[in-house]
Amino acid sequence: MKSYRKELWFNVPSRRDFVNITPEVEEALRESGVQEGLCLVNAMHITASVFINDNEAGLLSDWERWLEELAPEKPYSQYAHNNTGEDNADAHLKRTLMGREVVVAVTKGQLDFGPWERIFYAEFDGRRRKRALVKIIGE
Amino acid sequence: MKSYRKELWFNVPSRRDFVNITPEVEEALRESGVQEGLCLVNAMHITASVFINDNEAGLLSDWERWLEELAPEKPYSQYAHNNTGEDNADAHLKRTLMGREVVVAVTKGQLDFGPWERIFYAEFDGRRRKRALVKIIGE
Amino acid sequence: MKSYRKELWFNVPSRRDFVNITPEVEEALRESGVQEGLCLVNAMHITASVFINDNEAGLLSDWERWLEELAPEKPYSQYAHNNTGEDNADAHLKRTLMGREVVVAVTKGQLDFGPWERIFYAEFDGRRRKRALVKIIGE
Repeated sequence: MKSYRKELWFNVPSRRDFVNITPEVEEALRESGVQEGLCLVNAMHITASVFINDNEAGLLSDWERWLEELAPEKPYSQYAHNNTGEDNADAHLKRTLMGREVVVAVTKGQLDFGPWERIFYAEFDGRRRKRALVKIIGE
Repeated sequence: MKSYRKELWFNVPSRRDFVNITPEVEEALRESGVQEGLCLVNAMHITASVFINDNEAGLLSDWERWLEELAPEKPYSQYAHNNTGEDNADAHLKRTLMGREVVVAVTKGQLDFGPWERIFYAEFDGRRRKRALVKIIGE
Repeated sequence: MKSYRKELWFNVPSRRDFVNITPEVEEALRESGVQEGLCLVNAMHITASVFINDNEAGLLSDWERWLEELAPEKPYSQYAHNNTGEDNADAHLKRTLMGREVVVAVTKGQLDFGPWERIFYAEFDGRRRKRALVKIIGE
């Protein structure tokens, strides 16, 4: 069994944004040499997500609006977590909705994707260096 | 290490529905010959989900109502994604809530399930051919 | 390839609570002897979750409040599932939001975590014996 590990680093200049990381994950897969197996991609921070969906600008703006409806950033005082001096409780909830990780099948050395599947890193508390983990196992 | 791949195809006649795919996944597992490992099942489309929960008709209708409350289909104009000519932005959001994939342990050649765990394919933009992927690795 | 399986049992005395199970998962990983691989942790019940986030008391209370807003326990009659004699439809929905499972990379015999990642078992219908599954594969 082969295994391969790679960190992807980000420094998103705004509080929230979506980054298409499909090319970086494909590069990690090529580096791994794995032909058949599983590829895990997860946020290593608890105020960020990794998820799979469509790379369409309108849809990304729909998520931004929708997440603000379901888990609004302000008023900060609505969240007990923010009493600790943080202001990012909403980021923990938004990450809950979008998920921590994806597991993707690896087949014939490729990410085994449907036609529109793309991998995103979702930042909900940016303006600092953060990272995602790619771990690939197989043969 | 063994690996096995199988696509499950659907053509759900309505816009939304839930399909219990546990028997098809169990069949794929038997075909794989894997005794110990992991079984990934994921939607290959970004307007559909694979999730695990109870096969109870009332509960399935509760999800339908609840998902419409949290991510309503109409008015279509509320979503920027629908300006592209699509009408399925809500389906992308519903899929976000229900999830893309499940990873199930394989033990002694069986899906290693608690008493009520069943695997569902959730369609949120049906009336066309779509598919899920089963990928099993192990020994 | 090695594989290892362990059940973690709970009997949460209240209807809802969060339990930090990181030490138990780390112990299972040591017992497995796996150095490189993947570690799946999933609830075996469909009214409970396993998720990864921050171990901060204020945040845990924020989740409790937020989940009650998005999927309230009462009135019980609002859910078709509760017509079966159950009162736990909300627990199925809360589990949907928090997720069934996590998959964690195993690197050099450790859970490959960012600085604040902790694994929680979330109980939404407690006061009885329930369990989570740890399945580890690798070398």
